[in-house]
Amino acid sequence: MLDIILFKDNVLLLLDQRKIPGEVSQVSIENSDEAADAITNMTVRGAPAIGIAAAYGYCLGCIEAADMERSLLPGHMREVKSKLQAARPTAVNLRWALDRMEEKYVSLEEKETDEIIAGLVGAADNIKETEIQANIDMGRYGAQMLEELSGKKGKLNILTHCNAGALATGGWGTALGVIRAAFEKGIVGMVYADETRPRLQGARLTCFELKEAGIPYTLITDNMSGMLMKEGEIDAAIVGADRIAANGDVANKIGTYMVAVLAKENSLPFYVAAPRSTFDFNTPSGDDIEIEDRDVEEVIYMGKERICPEGTKAVNPAFDVTEHRLITAYITEKGVISKPDELQ
Amino acid sequence: MLDIILFKDNVLLLLDQRKIPGEVSQVSIENSDEAADAITNMTVRGAPAIGIAAAYGYCLGCIEAADMERSLLPGHMREVKSKLQAARPTAVNLRWALDRMEEKYVSLEEKETDEIIAGLVGAADNIKETEIQANIDMGRYGAQMLEELSGKKGKLNILTHCNAGALATGGWGTALGVIRAAFEKGIVGMVYADETRPRLQGARLTCFELKEAGIPYTLITDNMSGMLMKEGEIDAAIVGADRIAANGDVANKIGTYMVAVLAKENSLPFYVAAPRSTFDFNTPSGDDIEIEDRDVEEVIYMGKERICPEGTKAVNPAFDVTEHRLITAYITEKGVISKPDELQ
Repeated sequence: MLDIILFKDNVLLLLDQRKIPGEVSQVSIENSDEAADAITNMTVRGAPAIGIAAAYGYCLGCIEAADMERSLLPGHMREVKSKLQAARPTAVNLRWALDRMEEKYVSLEEKETDEIIAGLVGAADNIKETEIQANIDMGRYGAQMLEELSGKKGKLNILTHCNAGALATGGWGTALGVIRAAFEKGIVGMVYADETRPRLQGARLTCFELKEAGIPYTLITDNMSGMLMKEGEIDAAIVGADRIAANGDVANKIGTYMVAVLAKENSLPFYVAAPRSTFDFNTPSGDDIEIEDRDVEEVIYMGKERICPEGTKAVNPAFDVTEHRLITAYITEKGVISKPDELQ
Repeated sequence: MLDIILFKDNVLLLLDQRKIPGEVSQVSIENSDEAADAITNMTVRGAPAIGIAAAYGYCLGCIEAADMERSLLPGHMREVKSKLQAARPTAVNLRWALDRMEEKYVSLEEKETDEIIAGLVGAADNIKETEIQANIDMGRYGAQMLEELSGKKGKLNILTHCNAGALATGGWGTALGVIRAAFEKGIVGMVYADETRPRLQGARLTCFELKEAGIPYTLITDNMSGMLMKEGEIDAAIVGADRIAANGDVANKIGTYMVAVLAKENSLPFYVAAPRSTFDFNTPSGDDIEIEDRDVEEVIYMGKERICPEGTKAVNPAFDVTEHRLITAYITEKGVISKPDELQ
């Protein structure tokens, strides 16, 4: 696989996730405006990946200002930050990464521009490496936990929703990272991938990653998982997260709540895999999380074909909130925890 | 709207439901093979509509044998019946309608072929008229019941799944018939239509019918209803049925079970609207209902575009079973009942 997020010679190269699986290609991002657009239009998506891309977008914001009157730089960098932050409102990693980048910038403010840029790129590289390492660590903890479940049930059939794989995180993956690690232990029988309408990240991206990894998988429409759970075809559900509130409520791709309710109804464990950077202790509960409404054309059209009569009204909330009471455990790089407090 | 199912001059004219909303056109069915194909390929779909189409298909089976050696006719008619019955296995109306047609045929067996044909067409016409009248009656009962709910809640926002409208029944509709009658009473605020993957009957057919009827509607993907219920946007869910077992378990379009579980989780009523012909007292429970598995290409492709990597495995159960414990009430042409026994 090409690198998902690569910063090289002052250019941010993003694997274009809108084109997978049909085409595997990169987009070159050369300034902070382009970085914000790439986040909004989902060239790059997935909470941790958005955070990393935004960190490099912040670097581009400084690079594009290299010739700027120095006194204007702080104002420019504040604008860059708020522009990137507004690119997608729900994922907290975006804000978390930008806060870290801004801290770094402030610490370097008195230096030469070249030094500031080098420092920022180093900080962004560090965010990327830390996030990928967190994925690997949570994969190990998650797979250990699944081994116990497998001890009771044999090889596990695991449902996942949307894409919380390498594509979503810059490498390895959160939910899919746990599945990868469990597969390496020989305890995965089948992965069921929800197609995840309207953008089909499950069909397009998760199936692509599972195929590449040689993990057996089956594509289903979003309305099939309930039946499969009821028939005993699914042993556990694992999803990623875009933001986890202080009380443990999880904002994640629309339909996550549905999976959690169906898992509860069928007495199946429902796990959320996410790094520390996805936990937002400043947000008390799910009620306080802003949910992004995306263009309704994503619902009304499939490719170029309108699937409903002209003039049809639609809604398109990109995320929903799953209350903590529906979540069996959180799989993090610090271990498997039952509530966010255990991270502090 | 054109007639949905019309028998005229020994030809069965079916509104081609595969092409709506893009194109409103009819297909001419001239023999029983074509009738079976039209049911399998979903030119006509919806449990009551399939029953009516099969009844006329049975007439065509007799018409195509007009010049046959009379001693061969009974064997031919048995073949016609089993071919039509095999066209789609889950909907019980198909079998119910064919049993009635066969009874009629047996009662006429000694008559001239012309008289048999006339008798069969009369019986099929009668099935069609009876089914449409049943829709109108259940609509009235259902709307009365919703009036009480509306008294408590004001105008109702109603979720429906798949298409249980005029298109599914030959006219008026079951779930959508109830919604039509409730709308006429002024108690419907908004209808949320699940798009209903993989075939998109909700987006294509239900939205088409709601638009034609002037009823306000909003299209959603199948994974959004849970969030809308949780946010108080939905007051009740009403669906149709393909078969209702003696204990009240309901086989209906895949995803119906998911809607029922989400309604229960959110303390919302979940209604099934269906005529007497959909109740199958010979099937003890949902476990005994055969679920049709359709071609997985319906999941893998959208139109001509493959949505997942080459070689992706998928499953495509066309229906699921919702246990009676999840169903608030059944809306029938005999009244609103809480269990099937009340019909006997």
